[in-house]
Amino acid sequence: MPPRYLNFRCSVPWLILLLQTLFLIHAFFGFPAVDDTYSPSSFYPEFQDVNHMVIFGFGFFLMVLRRYGFSSTGFNFLLIVLGVQCSVLVEDLLVFLRVQRNEIGMRSLAKAVMSMTAVVISTGAVLGKANPVQLIVMTLVELIIFYVSRCINRTFLQVPEHLTLLHVHLFGAYFGLAVTSRFPEPPPGLDKHRSSPKSDLFSMLGTVFVWVFWPSFSSILAGSKREAVLNTYLALAVSAVAAFLLSALTSKDGKFRMAHIHSAVLAGGVTISHTAHSIQHPWIAMILGLLGSVITILGSHCLQRCFHPALKLQDTSGVHFTFGLPAVLGAVAAVVLCVLERGIETQWDNLSSLGYLVFFDIGAFCQTISTALITGLITG
Amino acid sequence: MPPRYLNFRCSVPWLILLLQTLFLIHAFFGFPAVDDTYSPSSFYPEFQDVNHMVIFGFGFFLMVLRRYGFSSTGFNFLLIVLGVQCSVLVEDLLVFLRVQRNEIGMRSLAKAVMSMTAVVISTGAVLGKANPVQLIVMTLVELIIFYVSRCINRTFLQVPEHLTLLHVHLFGAYFGLAVTSRFPEPPPGLDKHRSSPKSDLFSMLGTVFVWVFWPSFSSILAGSKREAVLNTYLALAVSAVAAFLLSALTSKDGKFRMAHIHSAVLAGGVTISHTAHSIQHPWIAMILGLLGSVITILGSHCLQRCFHPALKLQDTSGVHFTFGLPAVLGAVAAVVLCVLERGIETQWDNLSSLGYLVFFDIGAFCQTISTALITGLITG
Amino acid sequence: MPPRYLNFRCSVPWLILLLQTLFLIHAFFGFPAVDDTYSPSSFYPEFQDVNHMVIFGFGFFLMVLRRYGFSSTGFNFLLIVLGVQCSVLVEDLLVFLRVQRNEIGMRSLAKAVMSMTAVVISTGAVLGKANPVQLIVMTLVELIIFYVSRCINRTFLQVPEHLTLLHVHLFGAYFGLAVTSRFPEPPPGLDKHRSSPKSDLFSMLGTVFVWVFWPSFSSILAGSKREAVLNTYLALAVSAVAAFLLSALTSKDGKFRMAHIHSAVLAGGVTISHTAHSIQHPWIAMILGLLGSVITILGSHCLQRCFHPALKLQDTSGVHFTFGLPAVLGAVAAVVLCVLERGIETQWDNLSSLGYLVFFDIGAFCQTISTALITGLITG
Repeated sequence: MPPRYLNFRCSVPWLILLLQTLFLIHAFFGFPAVDDTYSPSSFYPEFQDVNHMVIFGFGFFLMVLRRYGFSSTGFNFLLIVLGVQCSVLVEDLLVFLRVQRNEIGMRSLAKAVMSMTAVVISTGAVLGKANPVQLIVMTLVELIIFYVSRCINRTFLQVPEHLTLLHVHLFGAYFGLAVTSRFPEPPPGLDKHRSSPKSDLFSMLGTVFVWVFWPSFSSILAGSKREAVLNTYLALAVSAVAAFLLSALTSKDGKFRMAHIHSAVLAGGVTISHTAHSIQHPWIAMILGLLGSVITILGSHCLQRCFHPALKLQDTSGVHFTFGLPAVLGAVAAVVLCVLERGIETQWDNLSSLGYLVFFDIGAFCQTISTALITGLITG
Repeated sequence: MPPRYLNFRCSVPWLILLLQTLFLIHAFFGFPAVDDTYSPSSFYPEFQDVNHMVIFGFGFFLMVLRRYGFSSTGFNFLLIVLGVQCSVLVEDLLVFLRVQRNEIGMRSLAKAVMSMTAVVISTGAVLGKANPVQLIVMTLVELIIFYVSRCINRTFLQVPEHLTLLHVHLFGAYFGLAVTSRFPEPPPGLDKHRSSPKSDLFSMLGTVFVWVFWPSFSSILAGSKREAVLNTYLALAVSAVAAFLLSALTSKDGKFRMAHIHSAVLAGGVTISHTAHSIQHPWIAMILGLLGSVITILGSHCLQRCFHPALKLQDTSGVHFTFGLPAVLGAVAAVVLCVLERGIETQWDNLSSLGYLVFFDIGAFCQTISTALITGLITG
Repeated sequence: MPPRYLNFRCSVPWLILLLQTLFLIHAFFGFPAVDDTYSPSSFYPEFQDVNHMVIFGFGFFLMVLRRYGFSSTGFNFLLIVLGVQCSVLVEDLLVFLRVQRNEIGMRSLAKAVMSMTAVVISTGAVLGKANPVQLIVMTLVELIIFYVSRCINRTFLQVPEHLTLLHVHLFGAYFGLAVTSRFPEPPPGLDKHRSSPKSDLFSMLGTVFVWVFWPSFSSILAGSKREAVLNTYLALAVSAVAAFLLSALTSKDGKFRMAHIHSAVLAGGVTISHTAHSIQHPWIAMILGLLGSVITILGSHCLQRCFHPALKLQDTSGVHFTFGLPAVLGAVAAVVLCVLERGIETQWDNLSSLGYLVFFDIGAFCQTISTALITGLITG
């Protein structure tokens, strides 16, 4: 073990200590008293589901590599408990700067846990290349930038509050990709990046776990929960069927491949997350789920063969095609659906306001991706 | 691998594709817009529990055989996502045919997930004998017949809506048994049907998982949830104690046997499911739980020795005594309790209406079993 | 296997049979009809969480020893289903004796499940030393004494109902310690008490599971759920960070040690449980979580080296420092916070009533510990 590595190791606890002290001092001075008026009874079960999903589901989801088995689950847990505190305090700072209204309480906690999803997805991309200190720093930087990006979307582009949070997959995936592109290529002899059947299996179980809790994730902050849950469930179901189907079609012997299912099962959920609360006809949700799954499987073939070697990208857990592409599709679908709905409503006679709307939506989407890519490169 | 088997393998994705296309076309034309008035906040956590239980609990529950370990969990997942869509659409078709009133929304989704329990139970009976194509066809046929059977019960025999759903164990177990009786006996040299300690263990964990979520399953559509939960919990607790007790008594060295506990722990829940919402005194629930457990353990002894060899039945996961017998007991208990209550109420002077009632209840029960058996034989 | 052991084995089913018969007879005569007015919709999800946590979380938590792996999970399940029935009936007996008001229903069930936590914690202390018969007897005795202790606290010391239940960690830990001190020291050659990496891992997973569901546990009976959840979550997060931090600092090579994390992650939850519903400023909750974690890690060092060998204590799962010390800290913190709040409110001019209050609080705390220790010694 080289001494430089040992130094890294030893600095981990001091870094954590420093952060925790900062959080405590901040909490002492800045944290307002609890005065949320949201009724907890209609909200708490979903929060618990999301919490459960982020810690267990994504914890197992990250176990794709043989050498980063249970320690990645443990480290994921550390990142989440650090990140949730950081996130609550960043939100509190924004309240202090008068950028948004005060809503400390359960909602704030739920948003913090949801924001952590971006970090967990990015972690999936750099897994096996970053050391713990880098991961902790990445967590903090990513959370702060994600909050800034959400702030820009909300203030300048008038995106509703809960929709800014659903850019979490988009942001997480492209931030992770940008960071991972700055890491040097590992020597080819290393077997660190191989997966074993057992780690594959746990990763698969984690995926199904995330699948089960996804409707809670989509609907926790939505206004019309009933529709959000129904649409998300149908999209997830179609997406899972399509994942099995495409996996059997693309493999030579007609068997289901775990890697395909692992990435495509969640695609429907990612695709639908921007639009779940506003779709009125279930068949649209089902089509979106199908498209999400198709794009993921095709993407995993094309990207791994052409695109990634060209850019020397190494995407350990396949974050790009699992979360990145379906999130892009979802954002595009959201714009298209919104335009169609408004167009039909106004019988296409108010094209300037329509263009204005499209401009804002695409602006929010591009801003999120470009912020993620640029800051990811800098962080890397 | 014989070519016939390869043909089967290759037809799986096309079958799935065909079904999924059908579902999408149907959804496009027939699916009404979401307009459920049921408040989701009081309903969603139970739905999530049931969803969690069907996918994870029964997924692990099916892992009894060594060779059908995790792939049975994965295939169970595929069957559920296909079945839920099929089930939502069959229900929609019935609405179209004016057989029942329209209630698309969360309730419809919850009913679809609950109906899948029947399919999962039947799968337990034919596990290791049917190939994937047969399982998918069986899923669809069973769901449609179960809906028809529920329709008959509701329309002609005036059984309340949510009670028809609780015939799910009865139907699933006897349908599975009838299907499995049509499969040829496997050559005795095969070790496919042996279980390993590890698969036993996971199966046991799945059972405890189902146990934990059973009160949600019983109470999700009941009118008086409080009583349903309390009665179900007490019945399950007594049933679990009785399972440990009888297991220690019937084994020679006084040790607990996993197989007994595996089947008898849930017996109380199955027995109580018809009557949980209407029992006023907890001791009745406790007695029913005890009886359910006793009948399961006795049944597993008698059936495996006498009855099954005579009929050349092979019941892989012990579905007959785990779900079939307690469900019969539960249906009988429901009739007896109903008669006693009405009898005491009217002081036994209106015997003709009482007989009428008994006739309807027994009719519903016999209709369910006979439909299950006959169609199961045909499907097999 | 000595014949005495065989006798023990054979008496287990008869003991269970006797208990179950007693419960049934009691239920037949004494159980009132269900007439709880608490709305289940706002209560049921938390109950389900606690139920899930006690059975799965603590079940895995107890798997610290290699030889008591899955059988301890199974036996834990048996103890819980027996204990919940016992607990419901003891509470019913207290209602009969007019000591408390009647509230059979979901609340009664929830309290029964929570009381079982004390038994599970005590089981952790005597694991590997007691045989099944001793464990079952211990369960019953402990539950009855815990109810008596709660009764004394409620009637004579005017502690609110739901706070008496939160003494459950304190009582469980010290009862378990007192019982374990009466067992003879095992011969040093035995490897029964070693842990394997796999059992450590499952124990760790169980701990994270308990961590996820802890906010439900703290808030289930609290009046102001929102604050209870928020404070508990923050305390748990700080406690988890501190556990990782201290673990890295105290180990020589800067690595995280599973044993430290295993015990310290929950310390914040235990510490906060008495005060979660009444703390108005989140930073107090965060400080308490930090202190709880520090005291646990320091305690585990000091106690294992100095205190336990002196008293010849063997604390298998480290129950003393995992639950005992943080619970003492939590009780002290509750008194201090209460005094400060009242003092500031009345501007320190009503010192006699303040002293009266402190006297009652400390009385309740001492009464709980001393009852636990004395009766534990007698039971042992």
